[in-house]
Amino acid sequence: MSSGNQGSYSNWKYGLDKQNHLQNVRVVLSHTTHPGNIGAAARAMKTMGLRRLYLVNPRHFPDAQADAMAAGADDLLRDAVVCSSIDEALQGVVFTVAMTARLRDISLQVKQPREAMPLLLQQAVSQPVALLFGTEMSGLTNEEIGKAHVLVNIPADPDYSSLNLAAAVQVIAYELTVAAQNFLSGMPEIQAAPHEQVEGFFTHLEKTLFEIGFFTTQNPARLMQRLRRLYARTRLEQEELNILRGILAQSTEYNARLKLRYQSERVEENP
Amino acid sequence: MSSGNQGSYSNWKYGLDKQNHLQNVRVVLSHTTHPGNIGAAARAMKTMGLRRLYLVNPRHFPDAQADAMAAGADDLLRDAVVCSSIDEALQGVVFTVAMTARLRDISLQVKQPREAMPLLLQQAVSQPVALLFGTEMSGLTNEEIGKAHVLVNIPADPDYSSLNLAAAVQVIAYELTVAAQNFLSGMPEIQAAPHEQVEGFFTHLEKTLFEIGFFTTQNPARLMQRLRRLYARTRLEQEELNILRGILAQSTEYNARLKLRYQSERVEENP
Repeated sequence: MSSGNQGSYSNWKYGLDKQNHLQNVRVVLSHTTHPGNIGAAARAMKTMGLRRLYLVNPRHFPDAQADAMAAGADDLLRDAVVCSSIDEALQGVVFTVAMTARLRDISLQVKQPREAMPLLLQQAVSQPVALLFGTEMSGLTNEEIGKAHVLVNIPADPDYSSLNLAAAVQVIAYELTVAAQNFLSGMPEIQAAPHEQVEGFFTHLEKTLFEIGFFTTQNPARLMQRLRRLYARTRLEQEELNILRGILAQSTEYNARLKLRYQSERVEENP
Repeated sequence: MSSGNQGSYSNWKYGLDKQNHLQNVRVVLSHTTHPGNIGAAARAMKTMGLRRLYLVNPRHFPDAQADAMAAGADDLLRDAVVCSSIDEALQGVVFTVAMTARLRDISLQVKQPREAMPLLLQQAVSQPVALLFGTEMSGLTNEEIGKAHVLVNIPADPDYSSLNLAAAVQVIAYELTVAAQNFLSGMPEIQAAPHEQVEGFFTHLEKTLFEIGFFTTQNPARLMQRLRRLYARTRLEQEELNILRGILAQSTEYNARLKLRYQSERVEENP
């Protein structure tokens, strides 16, 4: 492959990698009480490109409330794997991250989502990994925690840390997606106009302000400095420059037309 | 103070800063259809230490479903400010971040949550800021978007990007909390003017542009959007607003003087 193709090859490779990563990620919900939460969790997963839902002894499933909350993510519910034990859900998994809302006796590593998701992704390149969420009221049991490699705590207000189950799935899935993007920058910077055109605008602006008598009671140099600072901060684009100069030109033209109209009226009255 | 206290002092100071930041953050939900989403959004906010909920024309509020979904966050619902317009909700706000799920004609800066939340926090040190969420089905209107300084898009699977409203609030509030944890206290670079004064300037600008006939060959709405974008980027200070409005006033006054002069000249010539 020529070096000229390097860029596009990397992009293609990146896209493929990302897809593989996410296909290897299981979301395991253990002993979920409310079926609505299962549906909402499925929706949260799907928005972030996660598809593999495992349910350990859900209280009600399948369930109409789960379907309702899933919105367009009912395919994930249809494909969900219902298991009778945590070990069954973790079959084949090489790396398990368990969520916890509280401090534990067990001194497993407790990480922030932002630290843990890159680790999980790294493992997910080639083998299945799992994100493990406990029941709504009491979270994961110590036995379930014992199956995990890393504990993750979502930072929350200590006075009220009760994230809804689906909300927790959403936050973790979001972190995973951002980690998968590998911090590719999204937006191009603005296309700022070149120096000489911005200078042309300032000259035009100052001329027009003199024309309309703006500077008579003001300090021209000081005011122009303030206006320069304002537009330096914004960094003007070409089209914006055109609009602003259009306004200035129109102001001058309007004044000229006014004068002309009155002059021609005078000529008519005093021919 | 002994060096042994340094750590706890820093923590205390940090905690105080963080609290102030978050107290200045408003979550504005515009035209929310389902009251359950308002309750779930309140819960999501409270888990991340956000308290100030503003509702613009909610379809049903207060509502039993909102209360049910809020769980322990019913105090936020009780204190929620119900407004009849977006301008009312943004009264006093100096920096507004609007959520968007789709690409827009108007290319305001679109940032990722991770880029935008530190910017928001910086402004929130001393003045009110807002996070703006649109209606469930169609998001924010272009007019609402026009009031924002930064657009934020939560990265999602392009094939299924429909985050639930409360899930979006949860993700953004989470990012804000993480940003607050990492926030290094520093002064915001500029003292931006509050929303209503900037709106006053736009009204004045549009009126003056009509007056001088600028809009005859141009599309007013489109041009005003472009001008809004320009000044959203720069974020106007009080003194700058005064200068710009002074220019507009002077333009009007100059035109009036021109007319008057010609009229009085005509009177002199035809007494």
